[in-house]
Amino acid sequence: MAQSRSVIINPLDNDSFHDECGVFGVFGHKDAAALTALGLHALQHRGQEAAGMVTYDGRHFHSRRGLGHVADNFSSESAISQLAGDYAIGHNRYSTAGDTVERNIQPLFADFEFGGFAIGHNGNLTNAVTLRRQLVKRGSLFQSTTDTEVIVHLIATSNYVTVVDRFIDALKQVEGAYSLVAMTQDSLIGVRDPLGVRPLVLGRLDEAYILASETCALDIIGADFVRDVEAGEMVVISGDGILSLHPFPRLPRRSCIFEFVYFARPDSVMDGRSVYETRKRIGVELARESHVDADMVIPVPDSGVPGAIGYAHEAGIPFELGIIRNHYVGRTFIEPSDQIRHLGVKLKHNANRAHVEGKRVILVDDSIVRGTTSVKIVEMMRFAGAREVHMRIASPPTTNPCYYGVDTPQRSELMAAKMDLEAMRKEIGVDTLAFLSMDGLYRATGEPGRNAECPQHCDACFSGEYPIALTDQEGGAHAAQLSFLTEVAGKR
Amino acid sequence: MAQSRSVIINPLDNDSFHDECGVFGVFGHKDAAALTALGLHALQHRGQEAAGMVTYDGRHFHSRRGLGHVADNFSSESAISQLAGDYAIGHNRYSTAGDTVERNIQPLFADFEFGGFAIGHNGNLTNAVTLRRQLVKRGSLFQSTTDTEVIVHLIATSNYVTVVDRFIDALKQVEGAYSLVAMTQDSLIGVRDPLGVRPLVLGRLDEAYILASETCALDIIGADFVRDVEAGEMVVISGDGILSLHPFPRLPRRSCIFEFVYFARPDSVMDGRSVYETRKRIGVELARESHVDADMVIPVPDSGVPGAIGYAHEAGIPFELGIIRNHYVGRTFIEPSDQIRHLGVKLKHNANRAHVEGKRVILVDDSIVRGTTSVKIVEMMRFAGAREVHMRIASPPTTNPCYYGVDTPQRSELMAAKMDLEAMRKEIGVDTLAFLSMDGLYRATGEPGRNAECPQHCDACFSGEYPIALTDQEGGAHAAQLSFLTEVAGKR
Amino acid sequence: MAQSRSVIINPLDNDSFHDECGVFGVFGHKDAAALTALGLHALQHRGQEAAGMVTYDGRHFHSRRGLGHVADNFSSESAISQLAGDYAIGHNRYSTAGDTVERNIQPLFADFEFGGFAIGHNGNLTNAVTLRRQLVKRGSLFQSTTDTEVIVHLIATSNYVTVVDRFIDALKQVEGAYSLVAMTQDSLIGVRDPLGVRPLVLGRLDEAYILASETCALDIIGADFVRDVEAGEMVVISGDGILSLHPFPRLPRRSCIFEFVYFARPDSVMDGRSVYETRKRIGVELARESHVDADMVIPVPDSGVPGAIGYAHEAGIPFELGIIRNHYVGRTFIEPSDQIRHLGVKLKHNANRAHVEGKRVILVDDSIVRGTTSVKIVEMMRFAGAREVHMRIASPPTTNPCYYGVDTPQRSELMAAKMDLEAMRKEIGVDTLAFLSMDGLYRATGEPGRNAECPQHCDACFSGEYPIALTDQEGGAHAAQLSFLTEVAGKR
Amino acid sequence: MAQSRSVIINPLDNDSFHDECGVFGVFGHKDAAALTALGLHALQHRGQEAAGMVTYDGRHFHSRRGLGHVADNFSSESAISQLAGDYAIGHNRYSTAGDTVERNIQPLFADFEFGGFAIGHNGNLTNAVTLRRQLVKRGSLFQSTTDTEVIVHLIATSNYVTVVDRFIDALKQVEGAYSLVAMTQDSLIGVRDPLGVRPLVLGRLDEAYILASETCALDIIGADFVRDVEAGEMVVISGDGILSLHPFPRLPRRSCIFEFVYFARPDSVMDGRSVYETRKRIGVELARESHVDADMVIPVPDSGVPGAIGYAHEAGIPFELGIIRNHYVGRTFIEPSDQIRHLGVKLKHNANRAHVEGKRVILVDDSIVRGTTSVKIVEMMRFAGAREVHMRIASPPTTNPCYYGVDTPQRSELMAAKMDLEAMRKEIGVDTLAFLSMDGLYRATGEPGRNAECPQHCDACFSGEYPIALTDQEGGAHAAQLSFLTEVAGKR
Repeated sequence: MAQSRSVIINPLDNDSFHDECGVFGVFGHKDAAALTALGLHALQHRGQEAAGMVTYDGRHFHSRRGLGHVADNFSSESAISQLAGDYAIGHNRYSTAGDTVERNIQPLFADFEFGGFAIGHNGNLTNAVTLRRQLVKRGSLFQSTTDTEVIVHLIATSNYVTVVDRFIDALKQVEGAYSLVAMTQDSLIGVRDPLGVRPLVLGRLDEAYILASETCALDIIGADFVRDVEAGEMVVISGDGILSLHPFPRLPRRSCIFEFVYFARPDSVMDGRSVYETRKRIGVELARESHVDADMVIPVPDSGVPGAIGYAHEAGIPFELGIIRNHYVGRTFIEPSDQIRHLGVKLKHNANRAHVEGKRVILVDDSIVRGTTSVKIVEMMRFAGAREVHMRIASPPTTNPCYYGVDTPQRSELMAAKMDLEAMRKEIGVDTLAFLSMDGLYRATGEPGRNAECPQHCDACFSGEYPIALTDQEGGAHAAQLSFLTEVAGKR
Repeated sequence: MAQSRSVIINPLDNDSFHDECGVFGVFGHKDAAALTALGLHALQHRGQEAAGMVTYDGRHFHSRRGLGHVADNFSSESAISQLAGDYAIGHNRYSTAGDTVERNIQPLFADFEFGGFAIGHNGNLTNAVTLRRQLVKRGSLFQSTTDTEVIVHLIATSNYVTVVDRFIDALKQVEGAYSLVAMTQDSLIGVRDPLGVRPLVLGRLDEAYILASETCALDIIGADFVRDVEAGEMVVISGDGILSLHPFPRLPRRSCIFEFVYFARPDSVMDGRSVYETRKRIGVELARESHVDADMVIPVPDSGVPGAIGYAHEAGIPFELGIIRNHYVGRTFIEPSDQIRHLGVKLKHNANRAHVEGKRVILVDDSIVRGTTSVKIVEMMRFAGAREVHMRIASPPTTNPCYYGVDTPQRSELMAAKMDLEAMRKEIGVDTLAFLSMDGLYRATGEPGRNAECPQHCDACFSGEYPIALTDQEGGAHAAQLSFLTEVAGKR
Repeated sequence: MAQSRSVIINPLDNDSFHDECGVFGVFGHKDAAALTALGLHALQHRGQEAAGMVTYDGRHFHSRRGLGHVADNFSSESAISQLAGDYAIGHNRYSTAGDTVERNIQPLFADFEFGGFAIGHNGNLTNAVTLRRQLVKRGSLFQSTTDTEVIVHLIATSNYVTVVDRFIDALKQVEGAYSLVAMTQDSLIGVRDPLGVRPLVLGRLDEAYILASETCALDIIGADFVRDVEAGEMVVISGDGILSLHPFPRLPRRSCIFEFVYFARPDSVMDGRSVYETRKRIGVELARESHVDADMVIPVPDSGVPGAIGYAHEAGIPFELGIIRNHYVGRTFIEPSDQIRHLGVKLKHNANRAHVEGKRVILVDDSIVRGTTSVKIVEMMRFAGAREVHMRIASPPTTNPCYYGVDTPQRSELMAAKMDLEAMRKEIGVDTLAFLSMDGLYRATGEPGRNAECPQHCDACFSGEYPIALTDQEGGAHAAQLSFLTEVAGKR
Repeated sequence: MAQSRSVIINPLDNDSFHDECGVFGVFGHKDAAALTALGLHALQHRGQEAAGMVTYDGRHFHSRRGLGHVADNFSSESAISQLAGDYAIGHNRYSTAGDTVERNIQPLFADFEFGGFAIGHNGNLTNAVTLRRQLVKRGSLFQSTTDTEVIVHLIATSNYVTVVDRFIDALKQVEGAYSLVAMTQDSLIGVRDPLGVRPLVLGRLDEAYILASETCALDIIGADFVRDVEAGEMVVISGDGILSLHPFPRLPRRSCIFEFVYFARPDSVMDGRSVYETRKRIGVELARESHVDADMVIPVPDSGVPGAIGYAHEAGIPFELGIIRNHYVGRTFIEPSDQIRHLGVKLKHNANRAHVEGKRVILVDDSIVRGTTSVKIVEMMRFAGAREVHMRIASPPTTNPCYYGVDTPQRSELMAAKMDLEAMRKEIGVDTLAFLSMDGLYRATGEPGRNAECPQHCDACFSGEYPIALTDQEGGAHAAQLSFLTEVAGKR
């Protein structure tokens, strides 16, 4: 608070992509709220700025939303006991600071003529601003700045009768990437957009059905994995069982490949593949493509670890913890003075000086976004006495922003969009620098390579090929900034 | 928290009527937010559960709303500095506990096609539920449980073009009591319902115009009183000056007489009459109507003081502080045990034992609602040794609930609706009990008496004559209870 | 927080004397903690900055202390239930801002060789710094900056055996004013200094004994008043009953006369006299001494009310509420701009403009300290149109600081120490100004006048005659400022 | 709060030893407080329950202490700016819940006759209770329940003149393990007990000297490592440079071997040896001693990682992340119901199911304390489908509590004190279980083996040989429980 003018050291890495959300839902379990809290906790890596839950007890909906982690909002008995009912949906939110006002915290809830409706969204709509303008013109009042609210108003103003038909009617009008969990007075609904960009899985715990962004959220509650929700599928779970609808024209799945590179938890299984195994295979491919002699392979903690294990094994070079992570990373620390301004990264990491001094090291990291962290880590390794520093990146250069639900910098801030390989190597200060090839990445996911005609994944951040129209971007639309964003938020 | 099951002593008097709101607005002053904070502070007696403000700086609207007193939310420099702009409106809210969720705190703000719009409301709409149902059916999504939001949606869906025409269009559809302050991107608007039930005054501070519920809010900022906003008048204050509109059929003013009895601050001037003077006159009328021999006249603090002064003067009996008020009344205290359960009222008041022992006392109070406080106060006086206790009430018996913006108990909880005078006297435990007559009350406000054909005030709480249709009540409508009211409440 | 550099309006009157403490104790009641909370609440006017309590359950002592009001710290069931036991002592603290760190909050507790001991103090020791130096030299470590801790160390290092003997030994070494409540493992002890400067009363509730600074604290719990603890008396309450000791040479009582003027609650009885009655008598004496023609007598709320009633009655001039007090005074408000810098006092008071306009008014206030509030109130009355403003002060000019437990400004800040009557009249801006005479004040307390040989009260603030040696002052001692006072302050 | 009666899942591992403190000091740097905050942050693993700092600016001491992490208390600019001065000492505290009252947070500060003195302590005194009794008897008043306060009182009551002589006088009377940092008005002092049980290092940053528990705290501020403070050495750092004193009879160093096993950060260098390297060597020794065929070596995160790397390398079996750690571990979650009561460990860890299913796995963990976590982790691996589970422990069986500054369970709760190897294997549910031998552990620290005559380290937790007298234990002394421990705890 009120420290805006002081120079601060932020130990939290903002030099990476951030997934924007995790979703979770339960239908038919007496501990629905507690299970949802646990599921959201397992999905905390997908969004740490806010968390919310809506439950239904057969008569009333109950809601609780708050800034901060799941454990900050949902670990007290009183919080859980107020969230009565056998159905629940929950949501973790990541967002850039300015937008994190409480009214944007999901699940959104609406009181329709036909009853209550709650919805949580992972992804991003690419024509939300355009649709919002049309809705406002006809008298709809928006209460948040989230794209998701467009879906709610489209349902409210739909001419169809049942809630499922209205929901489908609304989704046919939106474009973008979305994995949704929704709740009506008698059903839990899961939907994945026609390309299946964001993940969504179906699980089962005893008689209850579960929806979750990733399988690790099934594991934490001891639920069984049933199957992925398919691209373009809507599952309607009610007392009558599961109804599977395919309301959109069928398209081949094109799920986000960056989930494998960084977003998903390594213990999740996605599209039938182990994320951990895929990351190790990425390391193997990387070692094959860009071998270099060295004394040790060092992961940049923690996301670089599986890739480094794969690399080390393939290259026959010892895997070592050359960088130690501080487990107690706080938010910010005041920087003492100019003289020691380079401390930032050390709040989070420290070089294992005794071990790397005089050695040739290979650093393995998952990706390079702005490159600022890489510069600091290499500087730290040099300061600790490493003789040679080679950097290997477990993905192709990230040259384009994501518009499908990932918080990424402007193109102009992406290091790989501004520089060629040699310029990047110099800037980062390494002896050699290599990225994984696009085909190598696809191979690691079990494909023979990238199918240029019809790529098996969305890889727009690497290729610039956007598989879903960017209507708002192209129309020059910018999100109508509600004027009262200062309202409640961080204020206390 | 979590103490709901323990028996607690609540020293705050819930045995009285509570006004539901105070409103304030400034147009054209560089310190608009600070002035509004001060104005709301002067109007704190009209609503203590939440406070809010919206300002406009020519480009953006800024908002801040919070539970608690004005000083809790608007006394920090940072709070005020974030509320930039030359226009501001503010609102104090009273409400029963269950409804005090943050989303109900006013001013409400909406982002219309034609720009931002903020509104604050003192009063109550009597057809809000009926209108809400119609709006929901056509696809409007409500985000609060306040009646005021109906006006916002009626504006959004109006077919008129200008914001003023849309506002008038909306108001023509609503019934009830309202004094409104609203703000658009180029104007400050004040409106009083056709009967002028709730107060609203116009003031001036240098070049700036001020709207406020009472004149005491003009005094605190050193503004001059210009005039009352008239019953049925809309004033539109803009860069072009003040435009006065009378969009409704003209009716004789019928302002709430209970404002004189209890709600308004004694230093306010209402309908051209000093509230303090009127209360003293009430005491004089009361002494004339129901004289009794006694040693002293004692006000029930603090609302009974002016009436007691008038009574004492007229009766020629000394005015004495026989009940001392504790200035540090906190919210609640834990009750030690059954044996001393009668302490409740003592947290707030104590009998001046040394002074009343052995004396014949006349207690003057403003009104009797449930009667529970009266019972305790009389018990306290008896315990302190008063020889005779006579009670004189500065208003007629309150026999009917108010539907025009005052929080009152059900009819079945009103003592005077359940018992005749003698039964009340016994229940309260006094030697004699007398209420002011209806004509006496009207005389104190400067009238020759009540004009039964066309009463000069709304006196429904005394007479049961409701001057505005109770559409929702008669239609059996109950406010659609949004299901997620638990949302914010328990959270902090 | 962190607003120290902004100009703020502090509506809380710092233009008055502040009593420094209230004490309370219970022996032998199962609700000891709850009763103590209520007693402290009734004594809240004696100290608002912090509150504390220590209880003993026969095996363990329990303590809770916190900044803020009693209700902030002791109104929750969990707070009370943790304070187990049948004995309790409690303390309200007033202090200047800098010293209000948590470690100074009383009761102080010490773990002696012979067991636990807790003590709460109203008053001030005038040789504390001198004694502290001696104790530190011998190896005693001080943990607070309170004078009271000296007593604790003197007990710890005493050569006597029993706790009562050690306590007496300690008190024989201290000088100053003190009313103490203390608790050992088997007794509750009350002590009043040899002159009885600060009040202390003994009460009874069923089988339990109560000690309290004022009788109003007995009233709130329904306890009977037994008697004042005498000047120089120590009462030791244990399972064996009450033991009354007089360990000091007997001196005539000389209790603080300012308690009658301002500190004590009007519903208390002190030295056998009703405080309210005494204040009314002061008003009568004042009217006799300095009559002036006028239209109304107006109290400066709230302390001026009894005096104004007495004055009005004696002078035959109507008593009127010409100044209305805002009941919702918050801590501070940001001042909007220079132009309206005079608002300060209006946050707390407003002139009853409609009533005073064109009138000749007599303002009655209890005392003048710095005079700044008087200047503002008179300005407010003039602004509201009063034709003549006469001020009558219900005490003699306050010309000297108090060293016996009252927070007073330096002598150089006392208006009456710097100016003569005419200069004060001009500065305050009144038509006439008069103070009560010293003899008038004594007459109001039931004496024939002040006995110059042996004054019946301590009146040092009016007379400059200090009845107890000011050892530290004369020795040039200043409280050793512990270096870590910043400790708690900024923390939350 | 108020959840005491509900069954909760505590994801924080209380099935391990906890180091009790970290200390840090700076002499002669303008950013002393900021550097100390960073140093304490790097030492956060040594104590997470509270943090404190005292600085000296040449005239005043400043202090700030608070419950929680360093970042919770020392990351704001205002916190740091209040801690003025060029000298600072800081302290991280671990403690069992009941004792974490604010008054126990170090550094302790005392205001002696000769000036201020602050002290922070890592270790535990084994005759503190005995000394405390003697001090209390002579009139010393204790204000905390920490053993460290005994040293402060011994200094206060010493007959020596200079602060250094008094400090030495005090230390000659205490027994136990201690690494101390202390601060006087002109010096920073570091001391290590005669055996050097707890670590303490000396560093240099430009002209400033630094004291720290571990070298990782030098790294974070970019300071150079100078040397270990020697066992039994006192270093007095002042404007005159460093003075090295050896006030005690010289003994061979016998530093805690558990620091190498678990406490110290892997990037620290201790007694001249890399902790990370030592842990890898432990893994190597373990593989040599207890080889078993398997498909992969899996570390129990995170402390088992270096040992697992060494084991995997020596055994030629792949190192794999078979257990994934959740980075967002909150404090507690409500357990949904009996049926899924086994979730506890999953809040922190999840089995990498896709990777371990059907495999033979070797789990490497640092130690076994109660064994409860081991049981859960093995159960989790079995549930995930591991075919064989072998457990290898990177230390000998822990059979005895530590009395030298480590929080350990009673002997009766130590699994290895209650069962033989086979019983432990069965209880934990593994196919094979093996511990490192005592000689193997010593070999990993660079010794040829344990010297039974004169062991090179304190290994009492493994051997039961306590090198320092346990005076209080043997005398049956228990810490005098100050009676007011409830004081702060319950307050918020």
